[in-house]
Amino acid sequence: MMKLIVSRNKLNAALAKVNSVVSARSTLQILGNILMEADGNALRLTTTDLDVRISAEVEAKIEVAGVTTIPAKTFQSVIRSMVGDNVTLDSNDSHHMKILCGNSNFKLLGLSPEDFPLPLEMTSVRRFKLPQTELARMITMIAYAVNQEDTRKALNGILFSLNENNFVSVATDGRRLALVEKIVEDASGADGDCIVPVRSAQELCKLLEKTGSVEVEIGDNMARFTLENGTVMTTKLIDENYPNYRQVIPASFSRKIELPRESVVDTLRRVSLVVSERSFYIQLKFADNKIDFQANSSDVGEGSDFIPIAFNETEVVISFNPIFMIEPMERLDSDTVTMKMNDGYSPVALCTDDGFLYVIMPMRNNR
Amino acid sequence: MMKLIVSRNKLNAALAKVNSVVSARSTLQILGNILMEADGNALRLTTTDLDVRISAEVEAKIEVAGVTTIPAKTFQSVIRSMVGDNVTLDSNDSHHMKILCGNSNFKLLGLSPEDFPLPLEMTSVRRFKLPQTELARMITMIAYAVNQEDTRKALNGILFSLNENNFVSVATDGRRLALVEKIVEDASGADGDCIVPVRSAQELCKLLEKTGSVEVEIGDNMARFTLENGTVMTTKLIDENYPNYRQVIPASFSRKIELPRESVVDTLRRVSLVVSERSFYIQLKFADNKIDFQANSSDVGEGSDFIPIAFNETEVVISFNPIFMIEPMERLDSDTVTMKMNDGYSPVALCTDDGFLYVIMPMRNNR
Repeated sequence: MMKLIVSRNKLNAALAKVNSVVSARSTLQILGNILMEADGNALRLTTTDLDVRISAEVEAKIEVAGVTTIPAKTFQSVIRSMVGDNVTLDSNDSHHMKILCGNSNFKLLGLSPEDFPLPLEMTSVRRFKLPQTELARMITMIAYAVNQEDTRKALNGILFSLNENNFVSVATDGRRLALVEKIVEDASGADGDCIVPVRSAQELCKLLEKTGSVEVEIGDNMARFTLENGTVMTTKLIDENYPNYRQVIPASFSRKIELPRESVVDTLRRVSLVVSERSFYIQLKFADNKIDFQANSSDVGEGSDFIPIAFNETEVVISFNPIFMIEPMERLDSDTVTMKMNDGYSPVALCTDDGFLYVIMPMRNNR
Repeated sequence: MMKLIVSRNKLNAALAKVNSVVSARSTLQILGNILMEADGNALRLTTTDLDVRISAEVEAKIEVAGVTTIPAKTFQSVIRSMVGDNVTLDSNDSHHMKILCGNSNFKLLGLSPEDFPLPLEMTSVRRFKLPQTELARMITMIAYAVNQEDTRKALNGILFSLNENNFVSVATDGRRLALVEKIVEDASGADGDCIVPVRSAQELCKLLEKTGSVEVEIGDNMARFTLENGTVMTTKLIDENYPNYRQVIPASFSRKIELPRESVVDTLRRVSLVVSERSFYIQLKFADNKIDFQANSSDVGEGSDFIPIAFNETEVVISFNPIFMIEPMERLDSDTVTMKMNDGYSPVALCTDDGFLYVIMPMRNNR
């Protein structure tokens, strides 16, 4: 039993948050449903795919408090398509829910909430807080660099590492490394590492808002992210040891070049149109106050372009997989990116003022 | 050999027209290329998938007239990504084409134009003209009703039938029939029928513009559509007999109801959220100055809604596959659609003032 009246717009917004982890094709029918808990002056919606669990709250006038579950996708479509400001939800003991709004009168068939998976228990919890925008930026700046293959489980996640208020996020696929560092407040006693599955981190990104902070709680086997608006996401962690990423970062660089970010990205994209599977690289030549970009493949053709920059030292020629240069640079928002290197054969770094560092090995294709 | 200078924007626009029929995955490599013919003060671009052939013209400063071919998708990506107003194209005898624009300098590998398929010969040509917007509207109003299965070849196309300046387009999949009639000028001696493959008709729709007329030429085995801007599309025809569609249209109707188009479409969409494969229909009840919409399925639930209309006669109850009602109505642009019927068991018609007629059999699910 449950009866309540809720704003259709607010309910729509809450459904958009929780429904991204619902798979209509799950073998467990209950995972296609939303757990709905009406109590006090709020309706709480919860979904899970067993790895990630998302809850969102929406203010409601509760006439009869109670709990039920309802098919997530159909419920969302019905609510979205209705015409009217307020929706009445009225669920009986068989979990049949009446949905009334405007001239519309629906009944959907729910399932017992007893079948809905219970939340995991969190143990040994460490806590810290940071602004939601900062956490979202950190994830966006590095998530693409995660290993997509199943070979090394630890690399399928993002490392969250806290050490004396220094919060570091790291992603690597073994060929390039992306990292962001931030100072966080309210983090005493929270030192430690955990690996968050990249898909969970990306789901979290969608939930994070432009204002307010997020509380991060890390336990032995799971993490919880609590937003100020009452939205909560929990995720299983990857229980592996993350490799020692610090040893990948060169101790020093002999050259430092400021790159105009947008025009470098555009030029890399343009010139990479002629790379092919057989020769998947772009050559960059730094000399005479410009960067020359060049690519060629025997099956497609050749492309070259240049950008003027301030660089008048000894020529450096260096080759990259263009995707590995485009992916970090297109996600940054600074006007310039600093490229640090020693020569055309050693690891190169891309950095920005806001704590971003990216390390990549050049390809050995220099002519 | 060929050399010319062309506006990058105009070239982009022409490439967008011809490139929709290019498949990068064709087994014949030449079908992935554009035939480029430079002559006089224009560059003509032609692509084909052997069924459909599209040519577009772009004004150019021709320095050396000639013919070549170039990979369509790569060429389009390169031109689109370049920065600058004008592009220089310079192709040598090996069909290597230099592409110069701004700081960019590309070379793409073409193929000999001798390998490019020749156009089919047109015989016994009949001609007529109509405004491009009208032909586009006709195709949009009916193309969805074409048979998608391979069972009856004739029904995979749109019938174009001209009889004494009366131009009728028809599509049917055997379960519903969509038809538009228009009076066309300049059509003397052009009477006759042909069946245009639906995919060709949809390609044509993309080419048709908001102004100007299109000349339609129909031959024994192919049709040609020539736009005022020089764009030409030819297509093979379906060489079958179209069924006698007139016999599907009831001679008379006893009831005529004006439906408010948009709210009927919205309500059909909303209520159809609860239909399922087991009971894929919506019941409409016309009575007491309203339409009651109702659907239910044992696995999803129930939905009902109503719309006030002017109808105070004897009640009519009638059931439809909701998709078969939504598809025509969502593509019309009139405020109201006239529904004509006799009872809940005989064919029903939807009509508008601008020559549209749609006939559908109700489902036998009335309770």
